[in-house]
Amino acid sequence: MVSRHMHAVGAQPSAIRELFAYGQRKAAELGADQVFDFSIGNPSIPAPEQFNQRLVELILQGPSLLVHGYTSAAGDEASRDAIAADLNRRFGTDYTRDHLFLTCGSAMALTSVFKALAEDGEPNEFIVSAPFFPEYRVFVEGAGCRLVVLPPETERFQVDFAALDQAVTPHTRAVIVNSPNNPSGVVYGERTIRELAALLTRKATEIGRPIYIVSDEPYRELVFHGQSVPFIPNYYPDTLVSYSYSKSLSLPGERIGYALVPPAAAEARQVYLAIAGAARATGHVCAPSLIQRAVGLCAGLRPDLAVYQRNADLLYENLTAYGYRVAEPAGAFYLFFQAPGGLSGQEFSALARDRFHILIVPGDSFGCPGWLRLSFCVETERIEKALPLLERLIKEL
Amino acid sequence: MVSRHMHAVGAQPSAIRELFAYGQRKAAELGADQVFDFSIGNPSIPAPEQFNQRLVELILQGPSLLVHGYTSAAGDEASRDAIAADLNRRFGTDYTRDHLFLTCGSAMALTSVFKALAEDGEPNEFIVSAPFFPEYRVFVEGAGCRLVVLPPETERFQVDFAALDQAVTPHTRAVIVNSPNNPSGVVYGERTIRELAALLTRKATEIGRPIYIVSDEPYRELVFHGQSVPFIPNYYPDTLVSYSYSKSLSLPGERIGYALVPPAAAEARQVYLAIAGAARATGHVCAPSLIQRAVGLCAGLRPDLAVYQRNADLLYENLTAYGYRVAEPAGAFYLFFQAPGGLSGQEFSALARDRFHILIVPGDSFGCPGWLRLSFCVETERIEKALPLLERLIKEL
Repeated sequence: MVSRHMHAVGAQPSAIRELFAYGQRKAAELGADQVFDFSIGNPSIPAPEQFNQRLVELILQGPSLLVHGYTSAAGDEASRDAIAADLNRRFGTDYTRDHLFLTCGSAMALTSVFKALAEDGEPNEFIVSAPFFPEYRVFVEGAGCRLVVLPPETERFQVDFAALDQAVTPHTRAVIVNSPNNPSGVVYGERTIRELAALLTRKATEIGRPIYIVSDEPYRELVFHGQSVPFIPNYYPDTLVSYSYSKSLSLPGERIGYALVPPAAAEARQVYLAIAGAARATGHVCAPSLIQRAVGLCAGLRPDLAVYQRNADLLYENLTAYGYRVAEPAGAFYLFFQAPGGLSGQEFSALARDRFHILIVPGDSFGCPGWLRLSFCVETERIEKALPLLERLIKEL
Repeated sequence: MVSRHMHAVGAQPSAIRELFAYGQRKAAELGADQVFDFSIGNPSIPAPEQFNQRLVELILQGPSLLVHGYTSAAGDEASRDAIAADLNRRFGTDYTRDHLFLTCGSAMALTSVFKALAEDGEPNEFIVSAPFFPEYRVFVEGAGCRLVVLPPETERFQVDFAALDQAVTPHTRAVIVNSPNNPSGVVYGERTIRELAALLTRKATEIGRPIYIVSDEPYRELVFHGQSVPFIPNYYPDTLVSYSYSKSLSLPGERIGYALVPPAAAEARQVYLAIAGAARATGHVCAPSLIQRAVGLCAGLRPDLAVYQRNADLLYENLTAYGYRVAEPAGAFYLFFQAPGGLSGQEFSALARDRFHILIVPGDSFGCPGWLRLSFCVETERIEKALPLLERLIKEL
């Protein structure tokens, strides 16, 4: 008597959440220091002090009716101005508030974009390269569309262009790009972006309609050793961006992000209005107002990456030395490595869990069997303690 | 190249928002004291001081990773416990955290409930009595379902039961109830609820499947002269509740509310999981975490209704004396009255606007032509100044 689809989505916990829940139970049973939980992508550095100061000032200075009041559906004007100005400064763009639609996190931006691009009564397809964040499937299918998954390119975790060439059809609405990537920790280089832009430009011309890139960028600022992340709208005009402050300002629970529709994108105004409509139809009234305003006041704040970078280096150097095959981590806070000894990802995950209470998510969840994701957004000490155990695991295989 | 449906929803501003925008322009042009904006249902009393104190304490005491961190999708456990305990104390129920799903406002609770109850591949219908909050149509149609509107019962603004009897079909999933009502300001009495429960019980038995009541209760605590609002799950077990703190704690921008699935409701666990799935598929990760926690600490706080009650009394007594036909306001912050002099609601709205810059929303927006909604969540002084003008309007007709 209920929607089978929605019930299935609600009843089926993600593999990541299941592993996390196991870790919580074990920690309660054995003590937190006995469990090495590398399952969840939850920031481990606190929100910047300055952000919390702005929050307190907003609350104390009021007026309360304004601070807690409705903003327009697209978001507080001053906050959108500040975010646009920050993007323009960094990327040489000319965005205004009218190109930004603030949402309850990147998740809500993505679902609105998918719904906006899905033509009524047509089959609508979105393409993503494995490995990919598994909620993309939930969001695309929730919008009544089909997710088309390209096989992983496990040499450098860029794009299998031959497969992409085959996968594009007249039903293709967009290619989802997530760089820095969850789960691989890899960044798409300029060469990849240029090749992607060229392929999609050619295909869009052949088919006679725009094919968008949906660039999901919650990890945009989380890159190591000063590496730069190409800003995709500057390479391919038909790019729609979804962004979240969850990782960059360590605010995952506060649900604040945005959809950006650059003015140069095909049918930009129509797309923007359709995003607004999709958001409205799913119950969006505005993003949380207090947090909107604080983010606007902190648009130029950048995260302190010292801990994540130290963790990334420590893991990459040591695991590689032990003999693991590891994707070189360039951004986000994930290390992606191949299961050693010919094991499947699930077998190695179970082995690490049962042997040493080390929790690592099998790559199957991300469309990349045989690999595993280790979230290193933890205290460095936890990694130092886990390293000898990870060494023993590969030595014993 | 975009979804026509979503584009239409995004491009079409509501009549209420249009009137509000007109008021803002006129206020900038003529001065704020020259415009009497009774268009928007935005609380005019600030959030309770105690709520803001809890917010500041949470931020300053931290830890930041917890305060701003993910909660479970259903919401912070302690907050749900506190909300359940408050409901149990007031209504003699036995709810627990497992029956509550915290959402970004009542809007998100409603869209998730509609999607949860919509059977895949079936026609799905939701019934509402006019006058009704116009976003119900957007939400129901956004869930791919049909909204069936019962004609208004303009004597007492209860339910036209003969029309309801006709309207229920095997496709009926729920009847939406909104009491205290936006826009009529009327409360459904116990007699109405009992009659509704009896009719739906009979129909559900005939049809052989549950018909739910979806009780949207953002104005639950906004009632005047100590009047009581029947708590519908205590009269009809198959009731799902959506609630918002927007009005009761004056937090409309913060987007915090919940769906309540009472354990006695038919297939309660399945419905709850389908709501969770629907929320997840539209990008819900959790309700804003800081606000969730503060609401949990303030579960017993009630609004100070003095201003709203004074405004309601002042308007009702005077407009009635002038000769207007007015629905007696029992709750919410709306006065609903008939256009005088045989005018349509739109004609009278235009007249009040053009003559005296008085902004009142025509009832057409709420499925009740010939009537108008006056939002009295404003300073009492604005009403005192508008009264003689409203008297002149009816006298001159």
